[in-house]
Amino acid sequence: MPRNLNDFLSARSKGVDASGIRKVFDLAAKMKDPINFSIGLPDFDVPDVAKEMAITSIRRGDNRYTQTQGIAPLRDRLRADLSKEFGRDVGEVLITSGVSGGLMLAMQAVMDPGDEAIFLDPYFVMYKHLLTLTGGKPVIVDSYPDFRFHADRVEAAITPKTKLLILNSPSNPTGIVMTEEEVRSAVEVARKHDLLILSDEIYEPFLYDAARGLPSAAHAYDRTIVLRGFSKSHAMTGWRLGYAFGPAEIIAQMTKLQQYTFVCAPSPFQHAALAALDVPMTDYVAAYRKKRDMAYEMLSRKFEIQKPQGAFYIFPKAPAGLTATQFVTKAIDNNVLIIPGSVFSERDTHFRISYATTDEKLAQGCEVLCGLV
Amino acid sequence: MPRNLNDFLSARSKGVDASGIRKVFDLAAKMKDPINFSIGLPDFDVPDVAKEMAITSIRRGDNRYTQTQGIAPLRDRLRADLSKEFGRDVGEVLITSGVSGGLMLAMQAVMDPGDEAIFLDPYFVMYKHLLTLTGGKPVIVDSYPDFRFHADRVEAAITPKTKLLILNSPSNPTGIVMTEEEVRSAVEVARKHDLLILSDEIYEPFLYDAARGLPSAAHAYDRTIVLRGFSKSHAMTGWRLGYAFGPAEIIAQMTKLQQYTFVCAPSPFQHAALAALDVPMTDYVAAYRKKRDMAYEMLSRKFEIQKPQGAFYIFPKAPAGLTATQFVTKAIDNNVLIIPGSVFSERDTHFRISYATTDEKLAQGCEVLCGLV
Ligand SMILES: Cc1ncc(COP(=O)(O)O)c(C=O)c1O
Ligand SMILES: Cc1ncc(COP(=O)(O)O)c(C=O)c1O
Repeated sequence: MPRNLNDFLSARSKGVDASGIRKVFDLAAKMKDPINFSIGLPDFDVPDVAKEMAITSIRRGDNRYTQTQGIAPLRDRLRADLSKEFGRDVGEVLITSGVSGGLMLAMQAVMDPGDEAIFLDPYFVMYKHLLTLTGGKPVIVDSYPDFRFHADRVEAAITPKTKLLILNSPSNPTGIVMTEEEVRSAVEVARKHDLLILSDEIYEPFLYDAARGLPSAAHAYDRTIVLRGFSKSHAMTGWRLGYAFGPAEIIAQMTKLQQYTFVCAPSPFQHAALAALDVPMTDYVAAYRKKRDMAYEMLSRKFEIQKPQGAFYIFPKAPAGLTATQFVTKAIDNNVLIIPGSVFSERDTHFRISYATTDEKLAQGCEVLCGLV
Repeated sequence: MPRNLNDFLSARSKGVDASGIRKVFDLAAKMKDPINFSIGLPDFDVPDVAKEMAITSIRRGDNRYTQTQGIAPLRDRLRADLSKEFGRDVGEVLITSGVSGGLMLAMQAVMDPGDEAIFLDPYFVMYKHLLTLTGGKPVIVDSYPDFRFHADRVEAAITPKTKLLILNSPSNPTGIVMTEEEVRSAVEVARKHDLLILSDEIYEPFLYDAARGLPSAAHAYDRTIVLRGFSKSHAMTGWRLGYAFGPAEIIAQMTKLQQYTFVCAPSPFQHAALAALDVPMTDYVAAYRKKRDMAYEMLSRKFEIQKPQGAFYIFPKAPAGLTATQFVTKAIDNNVLIIPGSVFSERDTHFRISYATTDEKLAQGCEVLCGLV
């Protein structure tokens, strides 16, 4: 009996379930000009200086493979900036194809089949699937209802197979930013149980209540791989630019793996990213803080919400008596597109709003959602 | 005892050996303005219409994530062109981040730990390492001294675990193009033993002796995944653009995996690739044919060579009494940078020349190499 085509598929690949978000998109496909709260990217365009540098690079012929680890001027600049921020030499910086690229490389470099990685629920959905690709096991620790880092719950999930603790602050989908105390307790757990920390800080520039910079495990614990990027900060989601730093041994492995997978991040955009680092983000952040305030103020009248401190998401609880999916269906019937928590969580109780849209649409959409309660 | 950092590395990652090419680069680092025959990319720049379309796309704001499978106009155009070439509807085309991206997705979609994939030696080095990442086993079939596809040798390597037959024509590093008869025999083997074919056709436009187009397994066997790209044809190696077509079930899995790894190919360059499809390649190919002829003519006076029919590589045998590495060291001492076959092979007997350089440098370098015999 010849194989049918399904017999050719790897168990790994079949184990990646992408049906959750597809269901939402199927529902959304019927919508005409919706109020769209589903988009995980900024509503501004790439800053002009970055566009112009991309164009200059293309014209002058920077269109070939770069070194695997990225162009030296960008790596050097990031190393200098980061070393200043962290008060120590952070070592070689690896330029990745988006933070997704960094996540994949880090997990492939570290996780063997059967190894376990812990992260909080709700979570950025890629963590689960990228771990599945390695044969590693996602160990998901509930953080409801406050979405904070509870060291005791995390500790209870640790086994001899645990290798990695994944943190994401500011968080997608909750907008929660870990406090210095929470970060300290995460580092303590990691140190005690001999874990590597993978810190996804892609939303680092979007901080609304911080007196100082982002609390990061990399301040106190050098066994931290930090991932940051340009997708969200500079609206370059389609340019595939991110970076990683951390223990030299692990960055070296990630670089080796990049050589045979991503090869290098897109060349002209590496030059553009360097230019983007000089664009002040304060106005953008101020505009998003205002949107955060507006969304929180309006929605908290009718919904149970943890006030977000960063990113551009808010994660309210669905009204009593409805699952998130039921409430989302109702919202879609009323032309507002939101995402059910089940896409980011083992629970189906909350929904995600991205407030990266115009103030007008934001007000309209919040009005509609409140009216549905 | 706390783990040291090496204990965090996955066996998979440690199993990827990248030392071969590194040794060459270490040697090359000492060279000042070498005659460089090591570069695996064209010596022309991206065609102007493609550059201008990239620039237009950046300016007008095509800087966000595209759909996972790529922008519709590019997919539709490729589907139409390919369906014409292959005389049947080739189905959905997936836009990938370079052919490397397509290779990774195909292997992750298909190979489970222990599954075997067969390819010829000499080989493009990525095949081996990408298989290692899946836990699959590379089964390498010797094709010396003629570098042709010998069905009997391939058949002898098949086991119940064999799932995939990887073909690469025109080949890196030999420049050999499979004949129609060879392709037919490869398809027969695949059909008989129920294998999927993965056909890496990245050098497809660089054909020097073909009366018709490239003989491809996809003509006769629909269980073929074809990978092609823009890196080599349009000198866009740094733009990370390729594409895949094949059985719908497998393309669907590859698309799903792309969502969590590459996300999408760089947006503005997808638009540029569409424009690039209208650039006639005949002049470029004629120029490279002339270089192929020159390199073959000069080197065959002193070296044993299979005349290449495609790509921009030639793969002569090292002079009697020397390993390839010894001969390469000698060449580097004489300021000509070539790559030892051991980087692409289980043998260390041949060396790779890329003739994608100026006619002048090519003549100079061949002169030097002949003088070393
Ligand atoms: C938490 C988080 N990490 C990583 C990413 C990946 O971003 P990119 O690969 O575009 O840099 C995203 C994108 O939505 C995200 O929300
Ligand atoms: C045979 C072959 N396949 C695939 C690739 C990968 O090319 P890219 O990822 O730039 O499209 C190369 C590049 O050297 C190659 O020689």
